[in-house]
Amino acid sequence: MTIMLYELAGRDAARPFSPHCWKTVMSLAHKGLEFERSAVPFTGVPEVENRFGKTVPVLRDGDKVISDSFDIALYLEETYPDRPTLFGGEGGVALSRFMEAWSASQIHTTIGGRLLLDIHAMLEPQDQAYFRESREARFGRPLEDVVEAGAERIREFGAKLEPLRLMLKRQPFIGGEGPLFADYIVFGAFQWARVCSAEELLEPDDPVSLWFDRCLDLHAGIGRSVAAAA
Amino acid sequence: MTIMLYELAGRDAARPFSPHCWKTVMSLAHKGLEFERSAVPFTGVPEVENRFGKTVPVLRDGDKVISDSFDIALYLEETYPDRPTLFGGEGGVALSRFMEAWSASQIHTTIGGRLLLDIHAMLEPQDQAYFRESREARFGRPLEDVVEAGAERIREFGAKLEPLRLMLKRQPFIGGEGPLFADYIVFGAFQWARVCSAEELLEPDDPVSLWFDRCLDLHAGIGRSVAAAA
Repeated sequence: MTIMLYELAGRDAARPFSPHCWKTVMSLAHKGLEFERSAVPFTGVPEVENRFGKTVPVLRDGDKVISDSFDIALYLEETYPDRPTLFGGEGGVALSRFMEAWSASQIHTTIGGRLLLDIHAMLEPQDQAYFRESREARFGRPLEDVVEAGAERIREFGAKLEPLRLMLKRQPFIGGEGPLFADYIVFGAFQWARVCSAEELLEPDDPVSLWFDRCLDLHAGIGRSVAAAA
Repeated sequence: MTIMLYELAGRDAARPFSPHCWKTVMSLAHKGLEFERSAVPFTGVPEVENRFGKTVPVLRDGDKVISDSFDIALYLEETYPDRPTLFGGEGGVALSRFMEAWSASQIHTTIGGRLLLDIHAMLEPQDQAYFRESREARFGRPLEDVVEAGAERIREFGAKLEPLRLMLKRQPFIGGEGPLFADYIVFGAFQWARVCSAEELLEPDDPVSLWFDRCLDLHAGIGRSVAAAA
């Protein structure tokens, strides 16, 4: 039975944008697994797989249903050990947790606030209402204000990427000579920005841009198969 | 033949302070290897092991001489594979390069500038002259000015540690349930501050302080065997 991935989308089902779902798309492609993709709107997430959980990605593989992009990567690593590794051993698993925390606290916080109105514009009306209400409750102010405040943080964004830039002087991927799940953790965030917004976050010759381009080329260009926002 | 570690020290040979040398002390202890420590002043570094290189740590193990804390860790991993792992596989090696870049760009840049005068005060006169000249050339201004400018950066230091703090909600060490070289990379920086300066960088109940305490307890408390600066 083909693996099914449920992933977030707006009006256009062909433009999935969730950073976490993209981590799973890349994980599945990395393992060379066949999978189908089912687009789910925000208000449809709680219904997925008999109300399995509160978030996507959700993956069904035969009888198994799993959510959370990191847990899915661990599941794939354990279930398909003969295919290319996503972690390169136990140390890679542990240190990927630091990458996840780095990406969440340094990249998502900066990019995420900036994208709120772009994402809102991509949604159907009932999802727009849910999205505005839930995000305004989370941030404690109107989406418009969060986005405006985000403009300042975007200016500091280049400096936040210095660890990645410094590391890229030594090796082409976070995983070393080739990518690992750690790359997909960070890729997901940049792909989120690429699919939702035409705003350029980085200079094209920034080592981080060049790394992101390499990630877009991976696995028959599955990341590039969704065009950048125009 | 016992392994010999050459490490940086000031007037008091019993208070080695280099962050990179501490990474190697912890690596050797992690592998459970016996080793001797030879204290080297700044002006003595070029003479170590027949002018082997420009920096310490330098390790001699039988006929082999190696410098650079990361290269030494790789050497120990390869040479003593049956002892506790420092990387937990190839993925751990690759991702430790990100940890190294994160620590260098986020922690060393903040702590290092702040410690310049403390380090200067720990040195013999000929090393003080070398240290002031080389660091003032690097920073392009008097040590006193660099330290003063560093006061502002110290105030932002807590925020820079957010990735580590977030990860520590999930696991007690960067290496997961136990420490890996990735922990020692970051430990080295905090130990540098602890040995050189009485200034408290973090609240005692900060998750990063608690993690550092756990690291000080490792390997029969080898990190704690040098008292904190008073």
